[in-house]
Amino acid sequence: MPWQRPDGRQPDQLRPTTFTRRFTKFSAGSVLTCCGDTQVLCTVSIQSKVPRFLEGKGQGWLTAEYRMLPGATPDRQERELLKLSGRTQEIQRLIGRSLRSVLDMRALGERTITIDADVLQADAGTRTTSITGAFVALHDAIESLIQRGELDRSPIRHQVAAVSIGLIEGEAFLDLNYPEDVTADTDCNVVMNDALEIIEIQGTAEQGSFTRGQLDQIMNLAEKGITELLQLQRQALDINDNH
Amino acid sequence: MPWQRPDGRQPDQLRPTTFTRRFTKFSAGSVLTCCGDTQVLCTVSIQSKVPRFLEGKGQGWLTAEYRMLPGATPDRQERELLKLSGRTQEIQRLIGRSLRSVLDMRALGERTITIDADVLQADAGTRTTSITGAFVALHDAIESLIQRGELDRSPIRHQVAAVSIGLIEGEAFLDLNYPEDVTADTDCNVVMNDALEIIEIQGTAEQGSFTRGQLDQIMNLAEKGITELLQLQRQALDINDNH
Amino acid sequence: MPWQRPDGRQPDQLRPTTFTRRFTKFSAGSVLTCCGDTQVLCTVSIQSKVPRFLEGKGQGWLTAEYRMLPGATPDRQERELLKLSGRTQEIQRLIGRSLRSVLDMRALGERTITIDADVLQADAGTRTTSITGAFVALHDAIESLIQRGELDRSPIRHQVAAVSIGLIEGEAFLDLNYPEDVTADTDCNVVMNDALEIIEIQGTAEQGSFTRGQLDQIMNLAEKGITELLQLQRQALDINDNH
Amino acid sequence: MPWQRPDGRQPDQLRPTTFTRRFTKFSAGSVLTCCGDTQVLCTVSIQSKVPRFLEGKGQGWLTAEYRMLPGATPDRQERELLKLSGRTQEIQRLIGRSLRSVLDMRALGERTITIDADVLQADAGTRTTSITGAFVALHDAIESLIQRGELDRSPIRHQVAAVSIGLIEGEAFLDLNYPEDVTADTDCNVVMNDALEIIEIQGTAEQGSFTRGQLDQIMNLAEKGITELLQLQRQALDINDNH
Amino acid sequence: MPWQRPDGRQPDQLRPTTFTRRFTKFSAGSVLTCCGDTQVLCTVSIQSKVPRFLEGKGQGWLTAEYRMLPGATPDRQERELLKLSGRTQEIQRLIGRSLRSVLDMRALGERTITIDADVLQADAGTRTTSITGAFVALHDAIESLIQRGELDRSPIRHQVAAVSIGLIEGEAFLDLNYPEDVTADTDCNVVMNDALEIIEIQGTAEQGSFTRGQLDQIMNLAEKGITELLQLQRQALDINDNH
Amino acid sequence: MPWQRPDGRQPDQLRPTTFTRRFTKFSAGSVLTCCGDTQVLCTVSIQSKVPRFLEGKGQGWLTAEYRMLPGATPDRQERELLKLSGRTQEIQRLIGRSLRSVLDMRALGERTITIDADVLQADAGTRTTSITGAFVALHDAIESLIQRGELDRSPIRHQVAAVSIGLIEGEAFLDLNYPEDVTADTDCNVVMNDALEIIEIQGTAEQGSFTRGQLDQIMNLAEKGITELLQLQRQALDINDNH
Repeated sequence: MPWQRPDGRQPDQLRPTTFTRRFTKFSAGSVLTCCGDTQVLCTVSIQSKVPRFLEGKGQGWLTAEYRMLPGATPDRQERELLKLSGRTQEIQRLIGRSLRSVLDMRALGERTITIDADVLQADAGTRTTSITGAFVALHDAIESLIQRGELDRSPIRHQVAAVSIGLIEGEAFLDLNYPEDVTADTDCNVVMNDALEIIEIQGTAEQGSFTRGQLDQIMNLAEKGITELLQLQRQALDINDNH
Repeated sequence: MPWQRPDGRQPDQLRPTTFTRRFTKFSAGSVLTCCGDTQVLCTVSIQSKVPRFLEGKGQGWLTAEYRMLPGATPDRQERELLKLSGRTQEIQRLIGRSLRSVLDMRALGERTITIDADVLQADAGTRTTSITGAFVALHDAIESLIQRGELDRSPIRHQVAAVSIGLIEGEAFLDLNYPEDVTADTDCNVVMNDALEIIEIQGTAEQGSFTRGQLDQIMNLAEKGITELLQLQRQALDINDNH
Repeated sequence: MPWQRPDGRQPDQLRPTTFTRRFTKFSAGSVLTCCGDTQVLCTVSIQSKVPRFLEGKGQGWLTAEYRMLPGATPDRQERELLKLSGRTQEIQRLIGRSLRSVLDMRALGERTITIDADVLQADAGTRTTSITGAFVALHDAIESLIQRGELDRSPIRHQVAAVSIGLIEGEAFLDLNYPEDVTADTDCNVVMNDALEIIEIQGTAEQGSFTRGQLDQIMNLAEKGITELLQLQRQALDINDNH
Repeated sequence: MPWQRPDGRQPDQLRPTTFTRRFTKFSAGSVLTCCGDTQVLCTVSIQSKVPRFLEGKGQGWLTAEYRMLPGATPDRQERELLKLSGRTQEIQRLIGRSLRSVLDMRALGERTITIDADVLQADAGTRTTSITGAFVALHDAIESLIQRGELDRSPIRHQVAAVSIGLIEGEAFLDLNYPEDVTADTDCNVVMNDALEIIEIQGTAEQGSFTRGQLDQIMNLAEKGITELLQLQRQALDINDNH
Repeated sequence: MPWQRPDGRQPDQLRPTTFTRRFTKFSAGSVLTCCGDTQVLCTVSIQSKVPRFLEGKGQGWLTAEYRMLPGATPDRQERELLKLSGRTQEIQRLIGRSLRSVLDMRALGERTITIDADVLQADAGTRTTSITGAFVALHDAIESLIQRGELDRSPIRHQVAAVSIGLIEGEAFLDLNYPEDVTADTDCNVVMNDALEIIEIQGTAEQGSFTRGQLDQIMNLAEKGITELLQLQRQALDINDNH
Repeated sequence: MPWQRPDGRQPDQLRPTTFTRRFTKFSAGSVLTCCGDTQVLCTVSIQSKVPRFLEGKGQGWLTAEYRMLPGATPDRQERELLKLSGRTQEIQRLIGRSLRSVLDMRALGERTITIDADVLQADAGTRTTSITGAFVALHDAIESLIQRGELDRSPIRHQVAAVSIGLIEGEAFLDLNYPEDVTADTDCNVVMNDALEIIEIQGTAEQGSFTRGQLDQIMNLAEKGITELLQLQRQALDINDNH
């Protein structure tokens, strides 16, 4: 008998996912994204300068920070103070690369966008939820620049979204929650744009290994999940679905 | 003509203050407290052990951490990484002392309570809002211990709440927001229990100095504001007001 | 029977307090202040530049550092290396604010004054002794600037001094030594200028709480003690007492 | 006309790869691996204890550290002192996971294996060269345990090797050197065991994106390159090729 | 014409050197040593435990810390916070080795002695003054252990003292002050015991080099200076000079 | 019967010492130096700028870093991450001073030379081997500047080499290996130039003390060993021995 998901979902079914825009009001963009019980607050700040390695090149930059609040998990987790863990660094680098991939940096001009993804509640999938939610907050922040007349047109070239897929007992499941995540042998995070082209794939066999056939199953689920997330982003942003 | 408050409040009037209990669900207590535009998420975690200096003494401990999310202010603030600023350390020490003052540490037993106060949005008064909100979250966390049968009775002996008062043009104003805070010459934070006894007073003349007569005005406003906050705590917690 | 002070002092009696000026000779100001067995060496350095946030504004700045030498207490205390404790940061911020309050920063010009308060021996009251002694060292340092013709007139507008008061068994006592400090339920530090106006008040109920009536007793003792300390400063500096 | 490789290799051709075993003699395993101009020294140390989270569980652990010597690149690179960069942390975590995947931790017993991969010369592919070379050093270290009678049989269940593949002008190339690496739009690192099962795949579109068809090309090259590297490992270790 | 010393001393003449014992009273030993304008406060603390690497071996340990107060020099020097400079580490390691050389660690028993050398005023020779003064403070601390009955006999086997010698224009001068120190081409610090045997020699040609003949001149001056310092130590300690 | 050296050497005999030039190819100079089983890789990098304290003075600078790879010793040694040990700092400062002593900084011009000495294998004498080998790498790096036409003539004024000497049972032995090093009571490192003038001498009695007669024996061995090392450097560099 195949693995039954703890919350009764189909293997290819996302958790309910919502975006609360303008959750706080001082940032250029601020979105609380809930994917099941995972809750991530993404705020977007924009500065009119660029890091030194880009000065005078007429283009912008985007960087990201990721943290988990101590109370986000049943057992309190210490804040990372003296140094960031390898896991945190990997995640914030992934978020940065993913969002940079959809921006036309010349059209952005000499500005630095900082994305802060703070996990208020963690039930697995925090890095993919951060990416999917950060896109909505980024869109709002860019719109505010346009409305204030600082930009003529949006430098956003694509939507971007991300999802996790895991192999449990050899079968692929979409969008794992925490009890599934600890059970899975293989964990894969996929980031795609709105042409369903791959921006990033990270697949790790925590136990054992996986075959190219299983990699294909994983990519099929990734396409399905990301297609749905892209549509939810458009609904939240009131963007025409034919975009 | 005396100073007119930007939001039209009377000199002795609090900002609207609300408590959203169980804002997240993995922590023993989790309360989002809004005081005007200031928003602080307080989560409470409980561990069944104590710091080394208390081991074997049959009593508990409470400690607090305070941080501001980078997007909490109009200009993004860097996270404190290598070391905490003096301001952050002062505030989290104040929160810890204030909440410890209302706990019977022997009745708590050998447990450590950690309060995490994370400021999602900052419009001044974040330290006093943290204290007032942390009390509600602490109450919920203690109740959960009692309901699970781990404690017979509550070690909470008092309510505790805090408020800021500032001197602007020589007059005292209750519960300053950010535009008032930068205008004030003197800034005072007062923590009191439900007998209106003083737990802590911190008064600083950022510019100039203040007299003992002004100190009296400040304390009068503090008593008024804290009386109201204590009542709002009881309402949020469904505690009979004759408590 | 009321509390008897271990050294036989009256409740409103200061410890013997002395100032040794020019204790070292390379600093602009250098004063060893003894308050009972508490010994603090305050040196004052002056640089002809200001922190970045003040550049070009035509005004000066003052900052303070506070440390305890490892051998200052019966049990050796580790030096603070990787990061400063919250206590140390609170104290050095307090010293800085207190001394800034008496300086006319425009009259000082674009200079940064650094006060180093190093505790050679600690018997409680180290922060208040640091403030009271730092004023004398600051006065000497400013005089040296005037004598070298770098300043026309002193930017010092007031004297400043500080004292601690504690509540033991409900009664207020002036200038606690260490055995009293660990006994006290409430510890209050008060900083005043030579008009006996309040610069800073920090009152903490380590155990329990205190009433507004007790706050009044505390302030009465503060005024008495600070009046005497101001006079001792003037004697040490050979300033006419009618100042 | 398609991209011509700077060193004239075919698109699916590895750089010359050699393993110098016992390069140093104090470590249990020590292998200098050269892949073209990339040179990595992997040493393996074994301790008879495990990290705290594994104590008493009857199993072992493997961890890895990765560093680049300052002189490994034409422009000297600063040593990472106060904290490791995100890149370094990602790489050493990847090396650790890859090597753990081929070890039977119960058969290893309560030992910790530490792999140190120090890059003496960097011409791209340092992380994959580290993994491929670390396997040879690990094999030597395990053999030394068996020869000293500390282990009855080898806990190594598989060979493991890794290779990079990049997309340049839309085509896939095996084992990029530095000039190719900076040209490539997409960079993919693949780790496989000797059954050609995937242990890890990390694919990043530095510029643009890539399709599922291109992912298939990448995986085809990965299988070819890793097949050859596995054979070179066996030759270096004098293992019968039918293994 | 040979070099004339700024303070008119003969080439082989020490600066006036004094020891003020029990400068502070909470430490087991506390000596303010003045060598000309160089002032070092050495305090000695004793703990009834040893570092882990010595536990259960029936012997003691001695370690030293060295710091310069910020106001010790005409230009204020920043405190070393995040990490100690190489210079500071070298000096405190030298102080530790020098004082350990005269202790019978078995006779000391499982105790750790910590020497804190804090430079209140720096006019060159701070490391040698620290060693010479630390011996006096160590002697006092050991005496207090004997008087309290914790030790039967002193574990001190020898006196130890140190002096600097510099080469200026090819000639050797004893006990350089700061203006001489910056002029000297070669700087040498010598530590000897009361048999005039060498404990440590550190000679550095900051500019150029020196010959073996000059090394001999240096050692001759070292013997003369240390002989006098050993006698001054005995006078300060009221030890019979025939010791 | 006198001490027999474990490897059968005469008391005044160096270990076999070799220099492998251009061990890596991206650095301006790169030499692997083997002194017995001690192996140190020295790479030399040259930057066309100087530290701030030398800007605009028309002269260059040289600095050095020293590290031991974790696998260099039989027991793996942790990398120094948050801070460098006192030992490491002492050694890299010594290497820097020694190499600076032979450079004409004006002839070098406004360039900074960085020497990285990484110990691949440690069998005692790593600091002296680093100095002796760094000279060869420095020579190669300077030659490359001259060949590229960036310098007209070499700023190298002298050769420099270093050796260790130890006292075992009161007798002096040249160039100790690790088993001898742990046996020796006194350890002395001597740096000399090609006129056999002393650049640096560091002699430490780890146990006991040593006499001036023994210091003479040490210096005799130092002269003999360094004479041979200077000749080996010239052979490696194909420099005429009459240099």
